[in-house]
Amino acid sequence: MTDLDAVDPLAPVRELFDLDDDVVYLDGNSLGAPPRAVADRVQEVVRQQWGRRLIRSWSEGWWEAPQRVGDKVGRLVGAAPGQVAVGDSTSVNIFKALMAAVKGTDRAEIVVDAGTFPTDGYIARSVAELTGLELRPALPDSLELTERTAVVLLNHVDYRTGRMLDMAAVTEQVHAVGARVVWDLCHSAGVLPIELDALGVDLAVGCTYKFLNGGPGAPAFLYVPAAAQATFEQPLTGWTGHRAPFAMDEGFTPDPGIARARVGTPDILSMLALDVALDVWDGVSLTDVRTKGLKLTAYFRSLVEDLPGVEVITPDDEWRGHQISLRHPDAAALMDKLIGRNVIGDHRPPDVLRFGFAPLYNRYSDARRAAEALAEIL
Amino acid sequence: MTDLDAVDPLAPVRELFDLDDDVVYLDGNSLGAPPRAVADRVQEVVRQQWGRRLIRSWSEGWWEAPQRVGDKVGRLVGAAPGQVAVGDSTSVNIFKALMAAVKGTDRAEIVVDAGTFPTDGYIARSVAELTGLELRPALPDSLELTERTAVVLLNHVDYRTGRMLDMAAVTEQVHAVGARVVWDLCHSAGVLPIELDALGVDLAVGCTYKFLNGGPGAPAFLYVPAAAQATFEQPLTGWTGHRAPFAMDEGFTPDPGIARARVGTPDILSMLALDVALDVWDGVSLTDVRTKGLKLTAYFRSLVEDLPGVEVITPDDEWRGHQISLRHPDAAALMDKLIGRNVIGDHRPPDVLRFGFAPLYNRYSDARRAAEALAEIL
Repeated sequence: MTDLDAVDPLAPVRELFDLDDDVVYLDGNSLGAPPRAVADRVQEVVRQQWGRRLIRSWSEGWWEAPQRVGDKVGRLVGAAPGQVAVGDSTSVNIFKALMAAVKGTDRAEIVVDAGTFPTDGYIARSVAELTGLELRPALPDSLELTERTAVVLLNHVDYRTGRMLDMAAVTEQVHAVGARVVWDLCHSAGVLPIELDALGVDLAVGCTYKFLNGGPGAPAFLYVPAAAQATFEQPLTGWTGHRAPFAMDEGFTPDPGIARARVGTPDILSMLALDVALDVWDGVSLTDVRTKGLKLTAYFRSLVEDLPGVEVITPDDEWRGHQISLRHPDAAALMDKLIGRNVIGDHRPPDVLRFGFAPLYNRYSDARRAAEALAEIL
Repeated sequence: MTDLDAVDPLAPVRELFDLDDDVVYLDGNSLGAPPRAVADRVQEVVRQQWGRRLIRSWSEGWWEAPQRVGDKVGRLVGAAPGQVAVGDSTSVNIFKALMAAVKGTDRAEIVVDAGTFPTDGYIARSVAELTGLELRPALPDSLELTERTAVVLLNHVDYRTGRMLDMAAVTEQVHAVGARVVWDLCHSAGVLPIELDALGVDLAVGCTYKFLNGGPGAPAFLYVPAAAQATFEQPLTGWTGHRAPFAMDEGFTPDPGIARARVGTPDILSMLALDVALDVWDGVSLTDVRTKGLKLTAYFRSLVEDLPGVEVITPDDEWRGHQISLRHPDAAALMDKLIGRNVIGDHRPPDVLRFGFAPLYNRYSDARRAAEALAEIL
């Protein structure tokens, strides 16, 4: 397999990451690895920008960072500049997106993927309770949308199985009944070609600490297309979303643009860590990333699918993200043993082993070493 | 004035901060100065915890950080352990606090300080609109509370004037009509003795980037007293507030304790920067801090109150926080000139100059140099 790595056009990108060579890190779908440049940038932010410039740094690049970094994320998800704001957690952004999506609606229901990452479902339920709409969990293959449907919240890639939905087809299906769609890109941003603008997606959210490598708990993002910004209204009306934050007006007048998606004071340390982390994408083609992701996962699948007691639950066609999930009755114990051998994936209850493949730093040899370790343990 | 600094028991604490000696930094009420230990800690978090331990760090101290760091904040505001969670912005925490405070109420109004920091008023208005309650702005001296009042949101120290409210008396006044009080401690946490538990405060929020020196946009905190936790419910039901976050349950069952105030994945870089920043309080008496704060502000006041065109709007009795605010028609231009002389305060429109005094690092000589610079400019 040295050959596959040798001819991999993305192989040199791994050098941009601070990863130990003896670790097989297959959990970038949970916490991305640190780009090397992050440590120095954070040091500069603390010692220079904060320490030397103090409060002045707010007018020397900090204030606009949520939009500036948002534009960098936008380039990776098919959003033209001025449509993505970085800040808050994914959960908070789902709340903003859903509240805005149902604002003023005369429709009756919110539909959410029944197998969604829990936080999406929890927040959707809260929004339903607050607004008096019904919450209807539904399987992506049988959404049964009608003109009662106000909004549909879906995960582009399922966190457990790695299944990828057809964003174009589902968006069209939602729009066909006049409803809105909110896409959660947590498990796809940065590894799959995504075309939010081209598909006419209504709203999207995502985290930046998985395949975008922003660091543990790095701020999330919210996409509001330009045409929808004037009517984007949600209850977290914090001062930084105001049209003139420093006027300290009594009334809230939202910024006319994407800044209205901001809430409180942006978290600069994490924001600027993410800022430099995103530079690893410079010159990288998402098509190459996708191609390598499919190859890596196909290769790993071929090595593990016949192991005893193992069931691969990730689709083996193109409708998958960059992870392979295995079901095994001893999943928890197996993962502990793998980690003991420096093969790091993760376990999701009750019986799922997840192996995430980040094409920017994972090698074919990682897939082979992980499969070999799993085979030996079994 | 060298004498005052020479006999200041807190003088050695300044050495714990990374501040240039030629800068007179009087804006710690907006952005605290960096404790020296932060840069190295952040470096360790990026290079070691994230880089070497990767995902494993979540079970090696990261996951519990919001409560652990919350307990450190709690010690500075009179809260016993297990009652403060760190995370999200102040705005988001005000939303949580107000939504929880009015949950299930049969009362009709939310009262908010009419001169409050804008975000408090904006969020209070959103909560009122969401819940169908009225929002009534009122001056702290004439709150006119009745049994129609569900909750009162007040700033302990006014961001503009520096006036401090009597937390004990006002809390009692609110409780006398059976209402709840939410205190915003943004401009007092870390510099004033605060006794949340002893006063029976219902809920409190605050930021950590001002006098707590957590760094730009560092996560905010939310205090929910133990006795109120079982009934604390708010709509930002993110997965990390769940009783068993990794069970990935379909339904949301809140953690029985303070963790239910958590929402999304905690922002670890900023959280752990704050963690070490709070160590500057080790061995420091808040009584000493308060005493020095009153002396510093009294001294600065005495030097500037007779300058031409200047009106001091900060109370000159004990009911003030650690800032002196001056009104002057050319406030904006004056502050620009002061900053040009390395005297850094800030300006709040239309005509207020603010000078914050952080007793842990500000010296009497800072007050003198600032007053001299202002006199020369005038």
